[in-house]
Amino acid sequence: MAKNLTTREEDYSKWYNELVIKADLAENSGVRGCMVIKPYGYAIWERMQAELDRMFKETGHQNAYFPLFIPKSYFSKEASHVDGFAKECAVVTHYRLKNAEDGSGVIVDPDAKLEEELIVRPTSETIIWDTYRKWIQSYRDLPLLINQWANVVRWEMRTRLFLRTTEFLWQEGHTAHATKDEAIAEAEQMMNVYSDFAENYMAIPVIKGTKTESERFAGALETYCIEALMQDGKALQAGTSHFLGQNFAKAFDVKFTSKEGILDYVWATSWGVSTRLMGALVMTHSDDNGLVLPPNLAPDQVVIVPIYRKDEELEAVDKVAKDLMKQLRSKGIRVKYDDRDTHKPGWKFNEYELKGVPIRIAIGPKDVEKGTVELARRDTLQKEFINNENVVEKVVSLMDEIQDNLYKKAVSHRAENTTEVASYEEFKKVLDSKGGFILAHWDGTTETEEKIKNETKATIRCIPLDGSIEAGVCMVTGNPSARKVLFARAY
Amino acid sequence: MAKNLTTREEDYSKWYNELVIKADLAENSGVRGCMVIKPYGYAIWERMQAELDRMFKETGHQNAYFPLFIPKSYFSKEASHVDGFAKECAVVTHYRLKNAEDGSGVIVDPDAKLEEELIVRPTSETIIWDTYRKWIQSYRDLPLLINQWANVVRWEMRTRLFLRTTEFLWQEGHTAHATKDEAIAEAEQMMNVYSDFAENYMAIPVIKGTKTESERFAGALETYCIEALMQDGKALQAGTSHFLGQNFAKAFDVKFTSKEGILDYVWATSWGVSTRLMGALVMTHSDDNGLVLPPNLAPDQVVIVPIYRKDEELEAVDKVAKDLMKQLRSKGIRVKYDDRDTHKPGWKFNEYELKGVPIRIAIGPKDVEKGTVELARRDTLQKEFINNENVVEKVVSLMDEIQDNLYKKAVSHRAENTTEVASYEEFKKVLDSKGGFILAHWDGTTETEEKIKNETKATIRCIPLDGSIEAGVCMVTGNPSARKVLFARAY
Ligand SMILES: [Zn+2]
Ligand SMILES: [Zn+2]
Repeated sequence: MAKNLTTREEDYSKWYNELVIKADLAENSGVRGCMVIKPYGYAIWERMQAELDRMFKETGHQNAYFPLFIPKSYFSKEASHVDGFAKECAVVTHYRLKNAEDGSGVIVDPDAKLEEELIVRPTSETIIWDTYRKWIQSYRDLPLLINQWANVVRWEMRTRLFLRTTEFLWQEGHTAHATKDEAIAEAEQMMNVYSDFAENYMAIPVIKGTKTESERFAGALETYCIEALMQDGKALQAGTSHFLGQNFAKAFDVKFTSKEGILDYVWATSWGVSTRLMGALVMTHSDDNGLVLPPNLAPDQVVIVPIYRKDEELEAVDKVAKDLMKQLRSKGIRVKYDDRDTHKPGWKFNEYELKGVPIRIAIGPKDVEKGTVELARRDTLQKEFINNENVVEKVVSLMDEIQDNLYKKAVSHRAENTTEVASYEEFKKVLDSKGGFILAHWDGTTETEEKIKNETKATIRCIPLDGSIEAGVCMVTGNPSARKVLFARAY
Repeated sequence: MAKNLTTREEDYSKWYNELVIKADLAENSGVRGCMVIKPYGYAIWERMQAELDRMFKETGHQNAYFPLFIPKSYFSKEASHVDGFAKECAVVTHYRLKNAEDGSGVIVDPDAKLEEELIVRPTSETIIWDTYRKWIQSYRDLPLLINQWANVVRWEMRTRLFLRTTEFLWQEGHTAHATKDEAIAEAEQMMNVYSDFAENYMAIPVIKGTKTESERFAGALETYCIEALMQDGKALQAGTSHFLGQNFAKAFDVKFTSKEGILDYVWATSWGVSTRLMGALVMTHSDDNGLVLPPNLAPDQVVIVPIYRKDEELEAVDKVAKDLMKQLRSKGIRVKYDDRDTHKPGWKFNEYELKGVPIRIAIGPKDVEKGTVELARRDTLQKEFINNENVVEKVVSLMDEIQDNLYKKAVSHRAENTTEVASYEEFKKVLDSKGGFILAHWDGTTETEEKIKNETKATIRCIPLDGSIEAGVCMVTGNPSARKVLFARAY
């Protein structure tokens, strides 16, 4: 049953890269830093999209689509935004190729140079706020609650499948409001939507909080985030939601007339999650045998594998399998029946373990005789025989049980790997020995934050919104601290 | 009730442009040739996507995602493909901006020039077949049935919302097969899927056929298409499906070992429809009052508008409206209840007429007294009063009736505007007097086709797969013709 998968113990990073490729989630393409999302990986992403999209619509948002390209000048309009995003990006300078005169192939036509270069969107605040100026005149046009599913490009020097790629898929919400309070409430609401999604669908517990000034989104007054802890003790930012104040409204001159007839700039938010979530999903639950998928996101929740030698045996097995498939599907369970004769059962067992299918059901001639099936759980690797009449009920209840079990395992892993420290010595010791989340007092200055980052590579993941708010003194400077904040080394 | 919409009679082209903008479907952006798809337009596109995606999956296809960028050299590998696509395209030459030394803003960093330029995909055959080389070794890996939902860019000089834009959204299927016959069967199947979708969901009758050699997709051996006729007598190609032979397999060296152990190149197809369908939808059904949407694609199938003066009246109306909304929703009908007090009923009537909502229900205090509602059909503009107990049944049956009516109207419009001609004189006369589809004999040569095109601007839309196959002589040269083919001026 060897899948030739490096173990997490041996090399966590190598284990991750191998698993993403071997489980058919994604692979590197011929284009530097750009990945191909393979059908199995894309099917998981589609399930994430469907759930998030439903949650966005339930909270009153509509989808729209804005251009891929952004004129270079748009970026200069919001000062901090250009510093954060306009630097490492793909720049379109020409709009035509032509055949080389020496017959060597196609070359860029120098006569087809753009007057103004176009940037492939790294995020769409600028092009969207340029559009909102035309859409918003009065309080009647507010709130404007829009989301976009799109590809974006950020020119990354070091890339890793899903976690950091030059092109990635994401959704970006961009909302406009009449008041500051409404915009803040929206940003907080979307952080909560992300947190609900992470916990209930991905089975990943997250810490909700706000970013420090230096870790904020370029152009935001407040960045809300959800932070998850991976199995190797490193943190992963799983979603962000930004309160943008009136910065973009001012940069793009978006004003509205209030009910009282007063002209004012609009208040903004933006929020997003990306295919990075795929990396978080893999790194939270999977093991040395392969992927482990929560039932709520698994493209196939159950796989049925027939076992037989002779054709007569197949006939009997096939009947039971198809009947079971039908019953499970009528309960809304996603079932795959793998009756290919090109692969042996052992190969299939291995394959679906690698691909993280939550439940595997094997049916052989002996089972048909006894009226049972063999049911194996991917999360615990436990197997048991179940009577035919109980299988459907069992599978239905296991859907919840496996989902809960994965979440609880992740919660207790996080609890084991969250440490409160009192001194900078202890901080460094914990960071190097076990890693994980570390709660420590910090004096609130960017200087101290930078010092810690430079000396330890740990960053402040967030100022948690929940938990103890006991005051103390900064572990580095001894200056007053209002509450402990969350540190970790991060992806 | 004036919507200030130019009539079709006055100026069909202007009517279209105005309608797309006024009905909130799309608008031009600050980026040349790129459109913003507004929430209402995007909601229609999402419904199209959902139905097509279901149809693709039912025919065994899976979704995946391939890079936005294609290295320039990939295009040179398939000779006819590069001629067709690599010319008018967006070229990424740099990957960084920097602050200008004179403080004038951001400029392209000359030190960040790419070694090989990247093309923003105009279509993905090359990058996908470069990937398929790694995925296909044996007959066991075939057929490979993959679809991608993506944005593509073709640098168009003259653009029109939905019909021809620099960036557009589409799906592109790319399949690989062990035999020529299988690939041809796949290409034909997808043409049929498109035709079913056009007729059953968009209510647009289409002619299925094959393209002439000069109108084929760059790199295809056969291009299947569906052709629709717009209200102004011009044709619109609504979808294409290509049999690519072994061209891309040879260009990208994709071979497989057959069951018999023989190594051979793989056979390919590709097929796509785009946001251009939105243009076809508007131009087929809409009228001088605005959009007319088929119920199967309408984001809101029914809108309920309350009519009242005093608050006591609203209370009674509101109760009836909400009760009706609940009943309709339980039948799967998409209902919007517009109880905004910021807009008058007249404004709302106008608005939903403009937006093509299939059924409008108005409820006032008089209706509450009498136990009726006023129901208005968008397609016929007929109004009638219906007793409360019959409304749900009526609406449910109208969904089918309106869908059918739109389809039948389009079929009879096409019949009225399809002419068989015997001579080139007659051909030119019909073309200039009524336009529409013209069936005429053609000798099968590119020369004659070009001559007709140059002299009349009419092109061969397709060689129909159905209909009469009576032989005759070419209307231009008098040479033998196997059957009449379909001509039209086209979008
Ligand atoms: Zn643990
Ligand atoms: Zn007509």
